[in-house]
Amino acid sequence: MRIDLNSDLGEGFGRWELGDDDALLSVVTSANVACGFHAGDPSVMRRTCEIAAERGVSIGAHTAYRDLAGFGRRFVDVPPKELTNDMLYQLGALRQFAEAAGTTVNYIKPHGALYNTIVHHEEQAKAVVEAVVKYDPTLVCLGLPGAAWLRYAEEAGLPTRHEAFADRAYNPDGTLVSRRQPGSVLHDPAEVTARCVRMATEGEIVAIDGSVIKANPDSICVHGDSPGAVDMAKAIRAGLDAAGATVEPFAMEPSAEHRA
Amino acid sequence: MRIDLNSDLGEGFGRWELGDDDALLSVVTSANVACGFHAGDPSVMRRTCEIAAERGVSIGAHTAYRDLAGFGRRFVDVPPKELTNDMLYQLGALRQFAEAAGTTVNYIKPHGALYNTIVHHEEQAKAVVEAVVKYDPTLVCLGLPGAAWLRYAEEAGLPTRHEAFADRAYNPDGTLVSRRQPGSVLHDPAEVTARCVRMATEGEIVAIDGSVIKANPDSICVHGDSPGAVDMAKAIRAGLDAAGATVEPFAMEPSAEHRA
Amino acid sequence: MRIDLNSDLGEGFGRWELGDDDALLSVVTSANVACGFHAGDPSVMRRTCEIAAERGVSIGAHTAYRDLAGFGRRFVDVPPKELTNDMLYQLGALRQFAEAAGTTVNYIKPHGALYNTIVHHEEQAKAVVEAVVKYDPTLVCLGLPGAAWLRYAEEAGLPTRHEAFADRAYNPDGTLVSRRQPGSVLHDPAEVTARCVRMATEGEIVAIDGSVIKANPDSICVHGDSPGAVDMAKAIRAGLDAAGATVEPFAMEPSAEHRA
Amino acid sequence: MRIDLNSDLGEGFGRWELGDDDALLSVVTSANVACGFHAGDPSVMRRTCEIAAERGVSIGAHTAYRDLAGFGRRFVDVPPKELTNDMLYQLGALRQFAEAAGTTVNYIKPHGALYNTIVHHEEQAKAVVEAVVKYDPTLVCLGLPGAAWLRYAEEAGLPTRHEAFADRAYNPDGTLVSRRQPGSVLHDPAEVTARCVRMATEGEIVAIDGSVIKANPDSICVHGDSPGAVDMAKAIRAGLDAAGATVEPFAMEPSAEHRA
Repeated sequence: MRIDLNSDLGEGFGRWELGDDDALLSVVTSANVACGFHAGDPSVMRRTCEIAAERGVSIGAHTAYRDLAGFGRRFVDVPPKELTNDMLYQLGALRQFAEAAGTTVNYIKPHGALYNTIVHHEEQAKAVVEAVVKYDPTLVCLGLPGAAWLRYAEEAGLPTRHEAFADRAYNPDGTLVSRRQPGSVLHDPAEVTARCVRMATEGEIVAIDGSVIKANPDSICVHGDSPGAVDMAKAIRAGLDAAGATVEPFAMEPSAEHRA
Repeated sequence: MRIDLNSDLGEGFGRWELGDDDALLSVVTSANVACGFHAGDPSVMRRTCEIAAERGVSIGAHTAYRDLAGFGRRFVDVPPKELTNDMLYQLGALRQFAEAAGTTVNYIKPHGALYNTIVHHEEQAKAVVEAVVKYDPTLVCLGLPGAAWLRYAEEAGLPTRHEAFADRAYNPDGTLVSRRQPGSVLHDPAEVTARCVRMATEGEIVAIDGSVIKANPDSICVHGDSPGAVDMAKAIRAGLDAAGATVEPFAMEPSAEHRA
Repeated sequence: MRIDLNSDLGEGFGRWELGDDDALLSVVTSANVACGFHAGDPSVMRRTCEIAAERGVSIGAHTAYRDLAGFGRRFVDVPPKELTNDMLYQLGALRQFAEAAGTTVNYIKPHGALYNTIVHHEEQAKAVVEAVVKYDPTLVCLGLPGAAWLRYAEEAGLPTRHEAFADRAYNPDGTLVSRRQPGSVLHDPAEVTARCVRMATEGEIVAIDGSVIKANPDSICVHGDSPGAVDMAKAIRAGLDAAGATVEPFAMEPSAEHRA
Repeated sequence: MRIDLNSDLGEGFGRWELGDDDALLSVVTSANVACGFHAGDPSVMRRTCEIAAERGVSIGAHTAYRDLAGFGRRFVDVPPKELTNDMLYQLGALRQFAEAAGTTVNYIKPHGALYNTIVHHEEQAKAVVEAVVKYDPTLVCLGLPGAAWLRYAEEAGLPTRHEAFADRAYNPDGTLVSRRQPGSVLHDPAEVTARCVRMATEGEIVAIDGSVIKANPDSICVHGDSPGAVDMAKAIRAGLDAAGATVEPFAMEPSAEHRA
């Protein structure tokens, strides 16, 4: 009954803020920190790492396509070698701020269009994995169960972890219901909390057709950038705590674990 | 009679190239590698670090203002805290590529307008030094003798080194002759080479008025982005070698020195 | 008793929003629209122009230094010729969206650090004016009374207009009280509204020492990006309307005036 | 026997230059001018427009995805509405510089990955056409025969023109031989010139299998950014002139035609 809660954080840029990072960093146990390519200027990165470190929240690299105007949500057909180097650049930059805050980068969870693309795009999936291997072969890869890039990661000997989505409906085969379909996103905090508790304690998700899927996510992704998001995240956290689940980072370096 | 030759390298970006990096990396002993803010995309950074590592050329961080359109040559009034974080971001990113190439970042030499600004701008000078202290207090700071930032660096216990310019005329007080004055830049390879040899072997520079200045640069900066630049750099290197000077990096981590 | 209310609008970028543009566009009569250099991607620009056109709000070019990361709030030492061209680029791009919305760009009000710089920086002031002359010598220049660029604009035969700030304290000499001083920004809607009414109807501002300054602003600048900003703007508008002031654009092309 | 020669120009950015624009602007009759999204800062745009105007070279908008790092050569999955607005932004900015130079934008030829994408990508093709309709329904659309976007352009009543490539091999069906195949790019100036003359005077291209294709291009695209490119362009121009072809812009506003 151990579970992690992760959220995308540090997604402001310069004058622009997004979401209530401070509140979420008191709720989640893993922070996917933007690295400057889709969001996250150096000062945002530093501040996010510092607060995460203070509160024992594990830091992950939320790497992305170079696309500030599109917030990393648009597929970019980057040649694999360049993509590998773009990942290394972002990983190195984030590591600097994690270390400046007395901790380190514990995992990578690509962002947005890149996250979705490397579920199936073989070349870009390999390119991301190659970057992780170059960066540090103990870095944990967090993604969707069945994603191509996690398969390559495992082949390369990298540790992998799976996540589920707190507020998304699932198909009976374990895939996410497309956002274009009605009912794809759940909005009721009580229902979402109950689902998260069931995932964490029983390893089950009720699919959109009522069937029960087996799922043992290492982490549950909660969102922070929509109205009510923080309240929902807090409800989930409270529900998991009340159900006796141990909510803690799935990946945390020993020294940081001690400090936290 | 030990001297280093440094040059600004890796200053392409995407489709655009600048200078003949491959040729210069066979001439110089220290490479000031652009970190993405004024030039140098991740793929250029990686390639530059790899060639430098192969040839035993020491890697330095050529950090800059965030200003691709201005090539880092325009003063930007960045608040000090942000400047510190911009430096950490660039240092971290470059370190990644240096390490991927089996070496590391040995020094920092800020670029362009930032280089000139922190000669006298107290707040920005302190901000750069603060970044170096955070990054690694053994990182060597390379700059102009008398620069404010090197003074702060020394106060903070950071190692510092000084550079002279191969092709620039000097005033009797040791400052550079302004580029607006006639004769400020020297173009004759033989004359420039003779000046470099004298700097390296006798610690002297003949000023624009004919007087002789004492100077003991740790490194001489040669340029690579103008026509004839590579030929001049080769002439300087050959002249120094012929004069019996030991041309080698002023800063190089032990392991890399062994390999080189 | 004619007065204009202007506000900085369209300052989102991609995923990021800033302020409540929709609400403000029902309050103000002139919209300073960001042109992509400090904020405002093309889609934001188009939407802002469309809503402004629908509501008869006059469109102005809120041109800026190329500085997304700093939101145009950092002085950049751009060479004058480049600054002129940066202005032309932004003016041309905004005109496109204004025309696509059936109206046009009626004035220019530079943004942030550029606004402040060309109050006194002669070369940059001239550079901005040169761009306006090239763009359209009937474009109105909106700025601070006494600003260098407005002086050059007048010398060049350009129409100029002055603005006052709704929520800023003034020195007895008519300059703004520095933001570093206590009391420089006023927060009470009733007080701010009363000041605006007095400016519009009596041409007077009470300075921070209690003395009365003569001021006949063509426009009053209200802010939209802080909490309570929209409420304050609404209060000011209601106060001006109640006082019998005619709140209307200081610059509007004839066709648009007809439509509005 | 009228033919146009077009080339991609103004593709420098800040410190970086690309190709010999000055030489090419004495050879070609149409300049595809970069608009700042893949290359071309405002000062490059202005200079390119000024030289083009002086020499009677027709100016076209070489619009692109927002991708400086990838030089617009990477497909970006931009939502159609945003793509339309990105095109309008670039068109408006370029028009400003064309007008400042006393001429105007006569046509649009999208760049790189966008050029290739809208040959077949229906949504993006429509989005580009929508921008042109909004911008000016007399703007000429220059592209590959059979391209989806030209089909939509014709449906919308926009004028279209076709181009052929001077140095590319063709398949018997009139499509280009893929760059991955041997012989896809021709390097011999004499052969390339002879092909261009035959295109212009006889409306024929010899395909890679020796068969003869009917082709009546309005313009032939020559490249300027590779070694020998300018010499080949000069050879083509000389060959066309010698063959009695009238080499002139396919689109030029009346006033500019007079001046030229």
